[in-house]
Amino acid sequence: MNKSPETVAIRRISPSLDNARFAIKRAAGGEVAVEADIFKEGHDELAALVKWRRAGGGEWSEAPMHPLGNDRWAGSFTLAEPGDWEFTIEAWGEVFFSWQHELEKKFAAGQRELQSEILEGAAFIESAAKRAGKGPDSAALKEFAKSMRAADAAAAHGLAHDPKLCALMRVHADRTLSTVAEPFHPVVVDRERATFAAWYEFFPRSAEGKPDSGSTFRDCLGRIDDAKAMGFDVIYFPPIHPIGETNRKGCNNSTTCQPGEPGVPYAIGNRRQGANGGGHKDVAPELGTLGDFDWLVGEVRKRGMEVALDFAINCSPDHPYVHEHPDWFFKRPDGSIKYAENPPKKYEDVYPLNFHNADWRALWDELRDVILFWCGHGVEIFRVDNPHTKPIAFWEWVIAEVRAKHPGAVFLSEAFTKPKMMHELAKAGFTQSYTYFTWRNAKWELEEYLAELTTPPVRDFFRANFFTNTPDILPEFLQRGGRPAFHIRAVLAAMASPVYGIYSGFELCENTPVPGKEEYLDSEKYQFKGRDWNAPGNIKGYLARLNKIRSENRALRGYDNLRLHKAENDNILFFSKSTESLDNTILVAVTLDPYNGQGGFVTVPLGDFGIGGDEEYVLEDLISGEWFHWRGARNFVGLDPHQRPAHIFRLRRQSGREAGQVVFV
Amino acid sequence: MNKSPETVAIRRISPSLDNARFAIKRAAGGEVAVEADIFKEGHDELAALVKWRRAGGGEWSEAPMHPLGNDRWAGSFTLAEPGDWEFTIEAWGEVFFSWQHELEKKFAAGQRELQSEILEGAAFIESAAKRAGKGPDSAALKEFAKSMRAADAAAAHGLAHDPKLCALMRVHADRTLSTVAEPFHPVVVDRERATFAAWYEFFPRSAEGKPDSGSTFRDCLGRIDDAKAMGFDVIYFPPIHPIGETNRKGCNNSTTCQPGEPGVPYAIGNRRQGANGGGHKDVAPELGTLGDFDWLVGEVRKRGMEVALDFAINCSPDHPYVHEHPDWFFKRPDGSIKYAENPPKKYEDVYPLNFHNADWRALWDELRDVILFWCGHGVEIFRVDNPHTKPIAFWEWVIAEVRAKHPGAVFLSEAFTKPKMMHELAKAGFTQSYTYFTWRNAKWELEEYLAELTTPPVRDFFRANFFTNTPDILPEFLQRGGRPAFHIRAVLAAMASPVYGIYSGFELCENTPVPGKEEYLDSEKYQFKGRDWNAPGNIKGYLARLNKIRSENRALRGYDNLRLHKAENDNILFFSKSTESLDNTILVAVTLDPYNGQGGFVTVPLGDFGIGGDEEYVLEDLISGEWFHWRGARNFVGLDPHQRPAHIFRLRRQSGREAGQVVFV
Repeated sequence: MNKSPETVAIRRISPSLDNARFAIKRAAGGEVAVEADIFKEGHDELAALVKWRRAGGGEWSEAPMHPLGNDRWAGSFTLAEPGDWEFTIEAWGEVFFSWQHELEKKFAAGQRELQSEILEGAAFIESAAKRAGKGPDSAALKEFAKSMRAADAAAAHGLAHDPKLCALMRVHADRTLSTVAEPFHPVVVDRERATFAAWYEFFPRSAEGKPDSGSTFRDCLGRIDDAKAMGFDVIYFPPIHPIGETNRKGCNNSTTCQPGEPGVPYAIGNRRQGANGGGHKDVAPELGTLGDFDWLVGEVRKRGMEVALDFAINCSPDHPYVHEHPDWFFKRPDGSIKYAENPPKKYEDVYPLNFHNADWRALWDELRDVILFWCGHGVEIFRVDNPHTKPIAFWEWVIAEVRAKHPGAVFLSEAFTKPKMMHELAKAGFTQSYTYFTWRNAKWELEEYLAELTTPPVRDFFRANFFTNTPDILPEFLQRGGRPAFHIRAVLAAMASPVYGIYSGFELCENTPVPGKEEYLDSEKYQFKGRDWNAPGNIKGYLARLNKIRSENRALRGYDNLRLHKAENDNILFFSKSTESLDNTILVAVTLDPYNGQGGFVTVPLGDFGIGGDEEYVLEDLISGEWFHWRGARNFVGLDPHQRPAHIFRLRRQSGREAGQVVFV
Repeated sequence: MNKSPETVAIRRISPSLDNARFAIKRAAGGEVAVEADIFKEGHDELAALVKWRRAGGGEWSEAPMHPLGNDRWAGSFTLAEPGDWEFTIEAWGEVFFSWQHELEKKFAAGQRELQSEILEGAAFIESAAKRAGKGPDSAALKEFAKSMRAADAAAAHGLAHDPKLCALMRVHADRTLSTVAEPFHPVVVDRERATFAAWYEFFPRSAEGKPDSGSTFRDCLGRIDDAKAMGFDVIYFPPIHPIGETNRKGCNNSTTCQPGEPGVPYAIGNRRQGANGGGHKDVAPELGTLGDFDWLVGEVRKRGMEVALDFAINCSPDHPYVHEHPDWFFKRPDGSIKYAENPPKKYEDVYPLNFHNADWRALWDELRDVILFWCGHGVEIFRVDNPHTKPIAFWEWVIAEVRAKHPGAVFLSEAFTKPKMMHELAKAGFTQSYTYFTWRNAKWELEEYLAELTTPPVRDFFRANFFTNTPDILPEFLQRGGRPAFHIRAVLAAMASPVYGIYSGFELCENTPVPGKEEYLDSEKYQFKGRDWNAPGNIKGYLARLNKIRSENRALRGYDNLRLHKAENDNILFFSKSTESLDNTILVAVTLDPYNGQGGFVTVPLGDFGIGGDEEYVLEDLISGEWFHWRGARNFVGLDPHQRPAHIFRLRRQSGREAGQVVFV
């Protein structure tokens, strides 16, 4: 044994993802509540601290831990600033407090021949004085040591428990033989827009809703101002790069394309058309120039919003990589490049990349540089297309590379796949993830899924972005349920998750599917799309109201503060979110039935909110403005999918009386 | 990224102790059933193997894993030979079987233009032929490749599923892009006596039971032969080293000692008395010489038994370390050495060692050398006194050091302390552990504890040694319950655990306590003790019967094959043990009431044993020799603490008929 032996066992640290292999996530200002088994041989008193710092170096901050019983300890800390952090635990046998404890037992047993013990205690205090350096603590400790040396048994026993001495001895503890747990546990703290945002997705070419031709970047302001008026703050564009011509798809995913059809933005890269080379670092000429794009990014930023771009690693046969780096692709036996397939389907307009080709380092570097290129153009939010079909190791590497230069970079994983892969991508570094929310409609499955997402371990690494719909997904619930279904899904997404989004057209209640599928008929992925963005029956006002409620109620910025409550009706979901101080509490009762009225008793968890059993409280409906005066936990709510799909209540409490009237705040 | 990226995620491997920080334990011939989450990006077919080898190097053995669903995989292997092993998992995307799967889908969809796919498949087979080297596999694969190249779509589709080709492609898979999980998981496989043994503890000085003087090593054969006749196979001696004189304790732990009193063997080391220096590497002169000890070890071995020694790190004030290495001990302010205390109790006859003194490396080396010294004298089993009062890091180090030279060394942890420390010592390397068994008497607490010990994760690292009593512990149950209680506890210890032990005197039903304590009155720890080792009322015959049943029934060598079954009486415990092949099944019904008769229905798990609901089976009582013919699961047992404290049944099944009679085997 060459290094100093471990003196204290520190085991089963939580939160810990795969033995600190991956970082836990927190929002800025989030708390990390740490627990561990901490013990050592013998009967010494123990002391333990949780320690944290910026990842990789610098001074540790510290907070004391306390025993919970059965050798389990707990402590916590809060990380205010975004960035990469790490924490660990330091623990040691406490010589002074072990001494104090033994002295106490001897004294209680009537022993008064304690001169040796007293001198021992004085020596502990003197050595603390030395550790304290030159300040007032040192002087005070020296004084205590002097008194201890002069004390008889009774005086020493009293002095050993002097609160000031004990506090000083805690601060200047002897940590020579302490153990610091390894590996350190990483924590990623994200900036606010990563943890609280409302996304609005639209295709720039559809900005004006013209049926026969596309809009440009310069035509997008109307759509953006409309999104802002609705309260959205992230504008997400599907790919804006030149679109391949070879095997270009026509409308409704047709394998033949008519002249003038605009093509699928996901068939990326056309070296013949791009002013800037035509690949992932270029913009489609029909949208404008890079300069136009920069202008648009600036306009969005001026409005207090941010642009998110799609990062789709799809290469059309016309992509410059195909010509410059044919070795980056898979080959067929005849030497030609393989197109994508999901047998029996063929995607002849897209060539997949081979991430493990012999020249993989150059490929990985190039893909990183694509992201960095757009960071250089003011974009720091990336929605990543199908990350689960590329190596996890690539994502872990590339996200770390980008975040090293752009710590505010946000990555949204568009993986709709099996749970373990979705979780792994989140652990590997994705800031946010698409979820199964889109297909959770029944009360039991919503409750189960919301509970899973917002409790450990999932809440420690997986941050949901609840999308109501996407260009690829028109859920059956929206197809069948019509306008009330759109209200319902909007309430669920916007209230249950601090990050959510809609794909444009949702506000118009567009819901015509390809028959028998969860896909849009005449999808704008394949064609120009005529639209009246103010068509009658739209729910823009309702969405604006939801986003206003979000912006005005801090409880809705929380993720794991969601609590499910009892509603005595299988079509009513009832949940709440509160700030820690309870100064903002939102209660949501939402119907899950888009057809018929539903009513039932709901149970308000009065105890959690500090409301007495017979105390009057007010629930202000933030949609309708009504005030409901309730008393007691169990109250009736009546919901109607057409008139009142949800109550979104803000809890108001009695603050006192004014002019004989009870005042609620 | 400098090294090759991980291609497959292999996560949540089980069994795994603290992320492979500690070894799991197995008996020789034990199975390791491994599971893990295994997945990768995309839609490739996966293959996975569990691999194992001697720790630190050499060839890997391999066994295939199979998917359980939801990305969980399972596989297993068996370790026949004792020693240190390690295992891991290797997984990769299976290009050939992914190809086969895609070909199948295309073929099923009616595609017949598959020339490119066929050539691709042929290339996969050719590269497997290369990997196969020069043998018959290579020739066969070349032949398959040739056929594939010549095949049309239908023939290729058939060939792709040829069982012989598939088997060869599994064996010669392309593992270029495989991932091997790290860290490797250590496994310790112990020799048989570590996992199946009956211990008999006696003080050599008490061998002949003389009231006024001690026996020597040369006088021990009678006691050893008696133990052998009872069926014990480990003879465990408390410390045999010279006993300190300074502050020597007198009988019944008196702090004053009369002339001629023999002292406590745990106050170790008397440099004035020892022929060989007087410390831990010496024997007390009153017991004989090292030569006498060597002779005794040889005699024990001749009888097919083994000696276990106590390793008690206690130094009397007369220990040579005190004089040669005063810096190894704790000091008082006046410079004198601190004696042991557990305030308000003082142990002035023992000085504790400071394991973190400045010269700790020399101390640790010396303590290791003590163990190696006794290994050199033919002892490889060590019962370690109070390991929980010495650093865990020391035990982890010293056990590894000793096992590196003596792989068969066995360490029994005598820690009666809180659960996490007991578990940690087992993880750190102790082969066996004392347990809470000694204080588990009620049915619910026995069932709970037996279940905890024999299921993961505890069964993977903690191996119980059930002691009925020790020189320090005369359990209240034995004090109160008299002779029937001794029968009951012997049945429980010997049948529930493959490793168990008694402290001598148990067979005589000695149960006179220090009033109000769980300690022996007139304990031989402090004095000579007169005994008639064949005193009337002894249970030597019963113990001999239990040990004979153990030796004749392989099911009782298993640890985690214990299954608890229903007995409709809170004073009857009913459990079974079976070999994996079910060729040996033992069922035990034991009363927990030492006072009154108890009867009740027990439920035999017929399904587990492959017995039909209306099939006749025989339970042979291995104590009484009676045969019980039962039918159906639920049957009545009647137990009497004085006549029949337990049924120990061997299950016998119908094997056929002979001369018109049903035959049971």
